[in-house]
Amino acid sequence: VFLDQLASQSARLREQFKIDLRVRGILGSKRMVLAETGIAVEHWRREYEQRGVPANLDRFIEHVHVDYLPHSVVIDCTASADIAGRYAAWLGAGMHVVTPNKKANSADLVYYRALHEARRAGGAHYLYEATVGAGLPVVHTLRDLRETGDEITSVEGIFSGTLAYLFNIYDGRTAFSDIVRDARQRGYTEPDPRDDLSGMDVARKLIILGREMGLELELADVKVESLVPTGLETGSIEDFMARLPRHDAAMRERLDAARARGKVLRYVGRLTCDDTSRTRSAGARAPSGVATVGLVELDTRHPFANIALTDNVVRFATRRYCDNPLIVQGPGAGPEVTAGGVFADLLRLAAYLGARL
Amino acid sequence: VFLDQLASQSARLREQFKIDLRVRGILGSKRMVLAETGIAVEHWRREYEQRGVPANLDRFIEHVHVDYLPHSVVIDCTASADIAGRYAAWLGAGMHVVTPNKKANSADLVYYRALHEARRAGGAHYLYEATVGAGLPVVHTLRDLRETGDEITSVEGIFSGTLAYLFNIYDGRTAFSDIVRDARQRGYTEPDPRDDLSGMDVARKLIILGREMGLELELADVKVESLVPTGLETGSIEDFMARLPRHDAAMRERLDAARARGKVLRYVGRLTCDDTSRTRSAGARAPSGVATVGLVELDTRHPFANIALTDNVVRFATRRYCDNPLIVQGPGAGPEVTAGGVFADLLRLAAYLGARL
Repeated sequence: VFLDQLASQSARLREQFKIDLRVRGILGSKRMVLAETGIAVEHWRREYEQRGVPANLDRFIEHVHVDYLPHSVVIDCTASADIAGRYAAWLGAGMHVVTPNKKANSADLVYYRALHEARRAGGAHYLYEATVGAGLPVVHTLRDLRETGDEITSVEGIFSGTLAYLFNIYDGRTAFSDIVRDARQRGYTEPDPRDDLSGMDVARKLIILGREMGLELELADVKVESLVPTGLETGSIEDFMARLPRHDAAMRERLDAARARGKVLRYVGRLTCDDTSRTRSAGARAPSGVATVGLVELDTRHPFANIALTDNVVRFATRRYCDNPLIVQGPGAGPEVTAGGVFADLLRLAAYLGARL
Repeated sequence: VFLDQLASQSARLREQFKIDLRVRGILGSKRMVLAETGIAVEHWRREYEQRGVPANLDRFIEHVHVDYLPHSVVIDCTASADIAGRYAAWLGAGMHVVTPNKKANSADLVYYRALHEARRAGGAHYLYEATVGAGLPVVHTLRDLRETGDEITSVEGIFSGTLAYLFNIYDGRTAFSDIVRDARQRGYTEPDPRDDLSGMDVARKLIILGREMGLELELADVKVESLVPTGLETGSIEDFMARLPRHDAAMRERLDAARARGKVLRYVGRLTCDDTSRTRSAGARAPSGVATVGLVELDTRHPFANIALTDNVVRFATRRYCDNPLIVQGPGAGPEVTAGGVFADLLRLAAYLGARL
């Protein structure tokens, strides 16, 4: 989808802004295509299918990173931790990286620091707006606030379109397991719904935002309430789906308890900064913060209780935005909006490298 | 306020990112201060008060724009049309401009085009995120969507914190004119409330966003419903305030009519694009669009009906964001958040010029 978007705009970018974007290689999980002067991006599918050779990441990078071109950028649209583990080497060698892949920024702090150290050493740019909320302006909004000296008090939101959908729909009339089953059939969940229900995807997004705020958080520091019942964490998907209904009663109890208090259930991620003043002064110890992910009871009039079916929503409370938070809301997943976020990062990179947009 | 924010961060920017921002002059309406090597920004107030000389814009610009420094930027925090009229010359000479001043981008199309032509010719950057929604990510979000090939169907929102407040409060129990009077006393309106009630400030913001979408709109093309009653457009503020109560009954009728239909009143700005496909291809005729500003009736459950008191809210409906729009919401005026928006633009400029943030 990203390549299709690029294809639709590359002529305009070249004519209007003199930005000459060349796709010199496309690497899939099994095949890759390399081209010296660039792949005709409007025919990328045909090129990839007809001229593809067996995939080889090392050869791919060697081909893309040539001295005679002013800049090279790797756009990683996988969710692979292996590929994310290569970013530090690429950035250190001066290649830019643009990605929606959460694995690098939510890896352990040792790698995270090495990554940013390599980026500085290599003088390269590393852009990852689409890791949180796809095309929604989340990472850059947070960075703008922080870099201009605002003090972030908390960042909270609904970071999973899947979990937003499940709890927007769940009203007790249909069993929770039936809603999960139906959502899975519609393609709203991952093939294994536990990947959504475990909350780990949300935890990774919180880590990314927390580190952007200067918090030194490890994934293990996030207090995650998994919605995968104990005992069902392993085993086949079919087995999991078959045994999930046994836990419907427990979920129903939570819903009834919330309702008795006039509340609704939502799956929310929250980052709070303990001592925001520490973020201000250079060289000071990193501020400490708390990250939690789980099911919470909210007022029926709470903004998170009234979002559209699969929307994400993020609220930034800061010193400047203290009475009312800054809110960004909208579809936060899906191929078109994710590709749009990646493409916007690519154009941002072009601007950083001197293009006049 | 902007200078205070800058002062709080300049040491960190210099140490952490090697960005050396020098304030070489400060121009007020009556006085200015110029300094060869830069004003100690943490003491700017004292410098300005003690070392100020009579203001002279030409001398100021001549001083700021020197060859031996790599870049110079004018940050215009006025609302002056005269100063906005100078941007083209400054940009053409290679000086960058950062501003929350709406006057240049909402001037006639002839000047608007000259401005952007000069910017290209001068190789300069012109950044104006804070013209709409202050620190909220509005202009850049719209630009990212457009530059990555999305097709904007409509942009609508509540673009005036003042008018948001008036209609959030107005429930018929207190006369509309009393609410205006009270809001004015609290400093929520301009000194002359007609500057808010006329809708022209909202119309200017729509023009800025419409032109960002590629629409060739003049201010006169915006269908503006002014809330200043006919006959009260001129005359003193006191006179206006004294005569406004005569129109309370008419406003009350509108509120009652809306309520009879189960609706609420909100002052909304709307831009719709007639033929979004035209925005795609380079060289094609500009797409045409319609811009309206005025009081509309909305469902009580509409997102615009449920914002916090003085919030702005902007909804982008596009080809990618078609089922659910992308929404940005929060305080859209005030010194701290406006200065934050200007500062973020300044750092964006630094990144475009090679700084590694």
